[in-house]
Amino acid sequence: MVDLSLHPMKEVRVIVSGEQRSFVTELLDRIEVSGYTVIAVTAGKGHGGVQSSHFMFGGIESLEMVMTVVPEEKVEPILSGLRTLFSHQSGVMFVSDVSVSRREYFGKS
Amino acid sequence: MVDLSLHPMKEVRVIVSGEQRSFVTELLDRIEVSGYTVIAVTAGKGHGGVQSSHFMFGGIESLEMVMTVVPEEKVEPILSGLRTLFSHQSGVMFVSDVSVSRREYFGKS
Amino acid sequence: MVDLSLHPMKEVRVIVSGEQRSFVTELLDRIEVSGYTVIAVTAGKGHGGVQSSHFMFGGIESLEMVMTVVPEEKVEPILSGLRTLFSHQSGVMFVSDVSVSRREYFGKS
Repeated sequence: MVDLSLHPMKEVRVIVSGEQRSFVTELLDRIEVSGYTVIAVTAGKGHGGVQSSHFMFGGIESLEMVMTVVPEEKVEPILSGLRTLFSHQSGVMFVSDVSVSRREYFGKS
Repeated sequence: MVDLSLHPMKEVRVIVSGEQRSFVTELLDRIEVSGYTVIAVTAGKGHGGVQSSHFMFGGIESLEMVMTVVPEEKVEPILSGLRTLFSHQSGVMFVSDVSVSRREYFGKS
Repeated sequence: MVDLSLHPMKEVRVIVSGEQRSFVTELLDRIEVSGYTVIAVTAGKGHGGVQSSHFMFGGIESLEMVMTVVPEEKVEPILSGLRTLFSHQSGVMFVSDVSVSRREYFGKS
């Protein structure tokens, strides 16, 4: 029987240049998230920090959004793991509440 | 006059292989959601369940995210409708809170 | 030192035809949001309003989602700014809660 009830989790989205995707996904693998989804970004502006209003991500086609859904206690390790990347690369991370079906796909707490 | 106030709704996102898109959208049509949006997924990993760490969605280019925004009472019918699909196919569903402008576009409760 | 703590913000997503993207992004620039991300939509249905069940966005390839993350007080100006567009064009706006790392990228309140 398939469990289709909904369970509260955290959705984490990270926007980085395509060249940095593997840094992010390898981090997610190390933290043992159960999966992730990568979506291409058509255009982006201003996630470059203080120089935001004048900064365009290197190549527009190389910008990507990596999404994952994790139990809350994995948010901080992801944040910490991105510290190295974000200290010298553009990028930003969003965290939001989400409910998922099939909790077994996303790892137990 | 256009009503631009915000109304609380539920956002449902379903990630499935491209071949399963029509199953999902036909389900949404039957439930009479007022619309949906399909976004291509560049890469995905691990939404295949217990074999998650070794499973890649069939073709990377065939993975899609179907998004819809519905009144809360339509979440359960969507979940139930996906039961058949999810019992033999990979896929996952996220539900989150969202507010929308133009409630008339999303169906009254 | 990089601040990686999380700060509550509002995520705004606007789905419009590609031809209307610049209307949206110029509005966001005027409101001085700190950035935005544009994602291509593969297919969409029903965001055309009362004729929703029969309406497909003009060209499937021309549908786009513009995402931005802003302090709460910028939601209303965005909503108001879209009034002109939405009075004669299809489109819809979603608002949701999100937390971000690097608040400095998104403008202080």
